[in-house]
Amino acid sequence: MPVLIVVIDGLSDRPVNGKTPLSVANTPNLDKMAEMGINGIMDTIAPGIRPGSDTSHLALLGYDPFKYYTGRGPIEAAGVGIEVKPGDIAFRVNFATVEGEGGIFDKTVVDRRAGRIQDTEELIKAIRENVKLPVEFLIEKGTGHRAALVLRGEGLSHEITDTDPKEVGKKVKQCKALSEDAAWTAEIVNEFMQKAHEVLENHPMNAEREKKGLPKANALLLRGAGVMPHIPSFEEKFGLKLAVIAATALIKGVGSIVGGDIITPEGATGNRNTDIGAKIRAAKEAIEKYDVVLLHFKATDELGHDKDFEGKKEFIERLDRHISELLGINIAKNCLIITADHSTPVKVGEHTADPVPVVILHEDVRTDEVRKFSEFEAYKGGLCRIRGMDLLNIALDLLNIAKKFGA
Amino acid sequence: MPVLIVVIDGLSDRPVNGKTPLSVANTPNLDKMAEMGINGIMDTIAPGIRPGSDTSHLALLGYDPFKYYTGRGPIEAAGVGIEVKPGDIAFRVNFATVEGEGGIFDKTVVDRRAGRIQDTEELIKAIRENVKLPVEFLIEKGTGHRAALVLRGEGLSHEITDTDPKEVGKKVKQCKALSEDAAWTAEIVNEFMQKAHEVLENHPMNAEREKKGLPKANALLLRGAGVMPHIPSFEEKFGLKLAVIAATALIKGVGSIVGGDIITPEGATGNRNTDIGAKIRAAKEAIEKYDVVLLHFKATDELGHDKDFEGKKEFIERLDRHISELLGINIAKNCLIITADHSTPVKVGEHTADPVPVVILHEDVRTDEVRKFSEFEAYKGGLCRIRGMDLLNIALDLLNIAKKFGA
Repeated sequence: MPVLIVVIDGLSDRPVNGKTPLSVANTPNLDKMAEMGINGIMDTIAPGIRPGSDTSHLALLGYDPFKYYTGRGPIEAAGVGIEVKPGDIAFRVNFATVEGEGGIFDKTVVDRRAGRIQDTEELIKAIRENVKLPVEFLIEKGTGHRAALVLRGEGLSHEITDTDPKEVGKKVKQCKALSEDAAWTAEIVNEFMQKAHEVLENHPMNAEREKKGLPKANALLLRGAGVMPHIPSFEEKFGLKLAVIAATALIKGVGSIVGGDIITPEGATGNRNTDIGAKIRAAKEAIEKYDVVLLHFKATDELGHDKDFEGKKEFIERLDRHISELLGINIAKNCLIITADHSTPVKVGEHTADPVPVVILHEDVRTDEVRKFSEFEAYKGGLCRIRGMDLLNIALDLLNIAKKFGA
Repeated sequence: MPVLIVVIDGLSDRPVNGKTPLSVANTPNLDKMAEMGINGIMDTIAPGIRPGSDTSHLALLGYDPFKYYTGRGPIEAAGVGIEVKPGDIAFRVNFATVEGEGGIFDKTVVDRRAGRIQDTEELIKAIRENVKLPVEFLIEKGTGHRAALVLRGEGLSHEITDTDPKEVGKKVKQCKALSEDAAWTAEIVNEFMQKAHEVLENHPMNAEREKKGLPKANALLLRGAGVMPHIPSFEEKFGLKLAVIAATALIKGVGSIVGGDIITPEGATGNRNTDIGAKIRAAKEAIEKYDVVLLHFKATDELGHDKDFEGKKEFIERLDRHISELLGINIAKNCLIITADHSTPVKVGEHTADPVPVVILHEDVRTDEVRKFSEFEAYKGGLCRIRGMDLLNIALDLLNIAKKFGA
């Protein structure tokens, strides 16, 4: 009875001379699915609301983002493997290079990514061991120069400002309270900033980097503070077991905060060089063990941000070849959904609210006349226009595991 | 980057022998727009909810009418130029003719419109100067026999009944409180009714009218009490500047209460004799200065209320000829929307909830196969079925000034 939702991040577009990467891509397998299934367009949040990948994935998993989304911090922290708990304050973190005399807030940011440092494990270990705060803290490495920080304790607030000035040539910013209740949290953050700086500045690894002419990773810049919401787990909410197959921290984070198992197969990278086949194999295995499996592909979004029409088209074609394997799934037993979390038009280079195409395959769907999986055909299908929050409910209904509301 | 929303009031219909005024009208320019844009149908409030022009215009401007609509009074008062403030109690007012002995509530209404009197300026001035109440009041002339009244002060309530009996041959009604808190307000209204009657009865203008055999305008009838809501201005809500081009008090009122600038060009009348060209020229000028411009045409609604199939069709054809000028708008920069606020089918003679056609023109829309602007074609378009509250969000997304929700 499993549901497999394939989310092709930022898949859909606005037309460029009447064409989109998806509409011109040669996609016999996706088109076959359009023919086999019921098609439509979907506003993952609501018409005209530009979705983030985090808010839209919450919606696709049946969680109202207006209720549960509290900022990127907790999701990124969960995505790098921190077990974030309700009430925790989480931040996105960059290793950075600062210069100047005095304390951390007297210094100027000269590289927001510390030369795109990769090997931060030892530095993080040193911070864990040597920084002492009045509350518990957790810090975990992300990809490259990225990390995530969590503050845990009574009386903390997320109503505080970033310490990341977001521009080089500017001084590191003091954390400020945005409400009276947050004054103590801001103090703790500033204490952390100074102590982490001292530990990093004096770390032998930075002496070595200096010798090699590399920028020192001597500061942490914090942004996107958010409090971890009280969010019911997927199992509590639906009585179902969830797996999320992804390599991108943000998507892994969404899966984690709702209590799903995260699967990142060998070779899955979260970018255009990902091993598509490995991810599809992982999905086929996962539907043997889980009730709902979300399989995420990131590269289409990246190529949309890069405004790369040809690249996006080619990735879609490559994806289509691998997706043929999903045609073997038994849709008498399973429900297979192909869709996106939002549009990332190459014309815009950013997420937009243009609805995404969606096709639902199951033996019992009312098939329609759509024969091509594209922005220009999907809206003619039998689903008309739905919302992200509806999708899982529709699938669970098709599988006859939805409960009746009323008598 | 402006958005121009053309609202053709009550435009759409239910079929009469399979036809509607819009579907049989010769509208080459509207049809051209259907071809150029993305089409759909729209429930301005929600499916099956019959919209007023006030509630639907609130929704079209992005304001939830279920949250912000508190009755017609405040909107009409704003529409005639009173600067209504949150907490004010506003009424729609008719000049009327009453006869009989005793006080105002002993008298009988013999003409609810005082012979459709037009020149009420002096009478209103006399009321302003001579009626004294325990609270501040403002009164302003509307069109013809109409006016608007606002009571301003602490402790006022709108939970009171009308004094307009709404039928001739009936006595003027005492205002009654519908809740305990409203007793004092009802007293003030009744005091106003009596004092206004005395001022009018003794006004030399009424002596003159009597001599000429005209019905005296010797009473004011109040209805539609509503409290002015706390409503964020359009600029606060969207950070954008709004202009509303209209001649109808109700529409001007909606524009006013959200802080928009109201433009009523010379020759714009709010009825079938309006100078369509002048309004379209005003709209083209306004999009140079404002971010969002709503251009309203009233006559289609009036002709729907009059059950005048031919008249409605002809007005639509006349409108279409002028609308050709809007085809010159640069849709790479601007977003042009043609729609209605509700249906006013000639078959019904009243507003109905039948969805309205909508077309959105912008260089980046996913164009569809709709080639005619009509009730029978619009639903086949790429927008499918949207709601009034979505419309502005969709336009702001197209213009890339929407903010992302999430990361």
